[in-house]
Amino acid sequence: MRRLGVRVPSLAPIFLLSAQRVCKLPLDELEIRVLKFVQENQLIPHGSRVLVALSGGVDSVCLLHILLNIKSKLQIKLLAAHLNHMIRPSAIHDEKFVIQLCKNLGVELYIERADVPKFCRENKIGIEEGARTLRYNFLEKVRKESSSDLIALAHNLNDLGETILHRIVRGTGLTGLVCMKPKDGVKVRPLLYISRSEIEDYARRKKLNYVEDESNYDVRYTRNFIRHRVLPILKEINPDLESSLKQLHFAANLLEKHLLKLIEKSRLIQFQDRVIFYINDLDEFEIVELLKYCTEKFNEPLNYRQIESISRLLSKSSFSVCVADKLWIKKGFQFISIERERNKISFVKLDDFKEYNFNGWIFKLSDRIESENYIALDKNKNFIRSRRPGDKIGKIKIKDLMINSRIPEFLRDEYPIICDDDKIVWIPYVYKCQVREVSGIFLSLIFDPYGCILKMSGLERRKRFERQ
Amino acid sequence: MRRLGVRVPSLAPIFLLSAQRVCKLPLDELEIRVLKFVQENQLIPHGSRVLVALSGGVDSVCLLHILLNIKSKLQIKLLAAHLNHMIRPSAIHDEKFVIQLCKNLGVELYIERADVPKFCRENKIGIEEGARTLRYNFLEKVRKESSSDLIALAHNLNDLGETILHRIVRGTGLTGLVCMKPKDGVKVRPLLYISRSEIEDYARRKKLNYVEDESNYDVRYTRNFIRHRVLPILKEINPDLESSLKQLHFAANLLEKHLLKLIEKSRLIQFQDRVIFYINDLDEFEIVELLKYCTEKFNEPLNYRQIESISRLLSKSSFSVCVADKLWIKKGFQFISIERERNKISFVKLDDFKEYNFNGWIFKLSDRIESENYIALDKNKNFIRSRRPGDKIGKIKIKDLMINSRIPEFLRDEYPIICDDDKIVWIPYVYKCQVREVSGIFLSLIFDPYGCILKMSGLERRKRFERQ
Repeated sequence: MRRLGVRVPSLAPIFLLSAQRVCKLPLDELEIRVLKFVQENQLIPHGSRVLVALSGGVDSVCLLHILLNIKSKLQIKLLAAHLNHMIRPSAIHDEKFVIQLCKNLGVELYIERADVPKFCRENKIGIEEGARTLRYNFLEKVRKESSSDLIALAHNLNDLGETILHRIVRGTGLTGLVCMKPKDGVKVRPLLYISRSEIEDYARRKKLNYVEDESNYDVRYTRNFIRHRVLPILKEINPDLESSLKQLHFAANLLEKHLLKLIEKSRLIQFQDRVIFYINDLDEFEIVELLKYCTEKFNEPLNYRQIESISRLLSKSSFSVCVADKLWIKKGFQFISIERERNKISFVKLDDFKEYNFNGWIFKLSDRIESENYIALDKNKNFIRSRRPGDKIGKIKIKDLMINSRIPEFLRDEYPIICDDDKIVWIPYVYKCQVREVSGIFLSLIFDPYGCILKMSGLERRKRFERQ
Repeated sequence: MRRLGVRVPSLAPIFLLSAQRVCKLPLDELEIRVLKFVQENQLIPHGSRVLVALSGGVDSVCLLHILLNIKSKLQIKLLAAHLNHMIRPSAIHDEKFVIQLCKNLGVELYIERADVPKFCRENKIGIEEGARTLRYNFLEKVRKESSSDLIALAHNLNDLGETILHRIVRGTGLTGLVCMKPKDGVKVRPLLYISRSEIEDYARRKKLNYVEDESNYDVRYTRNFIRHRVLPILKEINPDLESSLKQLHFAANLLEKHLLKLIEKSRLIQFQDRVIFYINDLDEFEIVELLKYCTEKFNEPLNYRQIESISRLLSKSSFSVCVADKLWIKKGFQFISIERERNKISFVKLDDFKEYNFNGWIFKLSDRIESENYIALDKNKNFIRSRRPGDKIGKIKIKDLMINSRIPEFLRDEYPIICDDDKIVWIPYVYKCQVREVSGIFLSLIFDPYGCILKMSGLERRKRFERQ
């Protein structure tokens, strides 16, 4: 958490009333809809402590009231948190309003002030982004300190539509349309499929007071520009625009779940700064999604142009492209590797009985056989090295042996070649020379990071031969 | 084809010049881009006859010029077709312009007039939709009569963006974002990823004349409303809006290919007015996509609300919903059936040696055994009937026997029950009574529309038991 500004009065809850107000009235129709939405989507488990993000605007005030009225049905405990953004002069008035509201309702309130404009200047970010960052930092801090389980946000259907539209305009793939999920980690959005006008109607019915969020009317903020300039025009084409955007959101959410299953099924092989997957049965869409997932894990998400150009390369049997600083995507045989460039070990001398690490492959030199994958060595100058230009065994190039054994190109430069003096005696899975086991010195392969790949690759090769 | 209006002068090509103009100049940069796009996406095979849809506007005039200049590289033959929409008074001027243009360029031109306003009044559709319908009907007719292979359309990146945005605003799922494909059956769009301004620049460089499409400035048409009112505002947020929409289009195209593969893999079982698929390993997204595909095949595409409510039902072990006139979606065990309501056979008397059809199941009564699935009958009153309330064999309900054999609910009412007088002797895959084979009368099951399902279902059951 960075520079959260002056804390006023303190992070300790302002009110600790023993009994919260209990509403005995029959539920309002909107309350029933929210209750159903929460239950159907399993947003809030029984017994949860739920921290309501309370700006004092109509959305969050209604959210707090609705949750208070259905909290006995949900069997939950409610708290509230308010961050004074100090952006506008009226912020102090909002703060006072929220304090009074929680006092009246008997809700524990956590409050803090953050100098958003200063934070944005210092971090050279927009006011909208800065306010969001500080707000979420604050909410997460309060959630932990108040032992709350969930943070309830008052985002509504209009917010959802605006966000989707914003993403479309800025440029997004399909999964980018999955924003503002009903449940997203510890964040829940009970009002997500309720429109702003329905919320305002509720406030009128219940005669609720709330503060006007003045930033709403400032079209300098992109979000407000979309709300006040773009949406009214789009609604001339379709007055029920929010439903259209919700439809897209719904479809994208289903797709995201489908992709999570794909990632699960794809059995990514992760070792050090590299992720490998087998593309045998995958289509272009699936490969692209796995690439997007993996590069995001490396904190280097692919942009659209990169995705487009890689998808053109996929039909080639092998390729190698740099997609970010020292991050490469490489294809060899039926594998794709996403890897960070790193220094490779190219030579290791084998002179003691101990373990040796050669680019992740672990060998053990010993007077005993330690695994089924081993070779007997002479009492001589033994070492492991990587391949060199022109490497041959007899008349056959090492490269051709590796191709024949379907070692993907991207593994060949770091592949261990075991030598006895100048003679190549062993290349795991590729070549083994017949040596008399007289010296009592054995080199065993005891950990092999890519063994499963080489086995899959071999399997594929056999299948290909069978087809011929 | 409906009411194509007056045909002037005739469908026969106006110009049949032996030599088309061959351009010897080096290719323009835009021509090179289009050539590359056509080649990379394999839009137009060598030797094709390509009919260019020529309105006379800047897009189609440039398309014709570009294709003329790259036609020797592509080894194609070009023709053109122009439909006079008769919407505006200037239409006749456009027609004259196009005739003169093709004369100058030596391109065969097919021309026709259609009274679009009249067609729209008569069919109660919008002018935009009516013009499109008549235009495509005309182009397809000319394509066939001129023995052309492909129709080249001049849609550009802006058209693509406008269409996507229009669909988003009206409401669409993800695959709805796949509109205007580079190649779509016999239609090809060589300019699809070229922006309107790039096309206008080309026209300026090449000093090309073209007519102004006045309807472009009429914001009554939704397309033009989007072009002139919506896009300029969205471009205030992102000046490169078309690229964003192209990105979404690209992603949706990949997804569509993925879905085609899914449909291929899902092995839909189609019999009469029913499609069944096995949902065992499918996720919600895949099931929803298959449902969308199947209901479209029945010409009753699901709308968003239906999809949403069905996706809520999917977790239930069985359900049955009517989604359109007499069209039902039913789930039983691990199967989903999409079916049209139809009259079911409930009783068939077996009195001659011949074949009997009972709701698609074909039985043969004979003095020989005709398949491995058979029963011997007594010389008595034999018949096949459907189940009746309270049906039992001994003390066991038929319903329980069927459940035990994992016959999906949706098949049970039409399932054949073979009776000998009043005694149930055979329910295929469910029950067979021991009968002495003395009479020499055999009933053999020779075609079984759902056998593969019952076998899959049994397989699943065995797996479940093994797990227990």
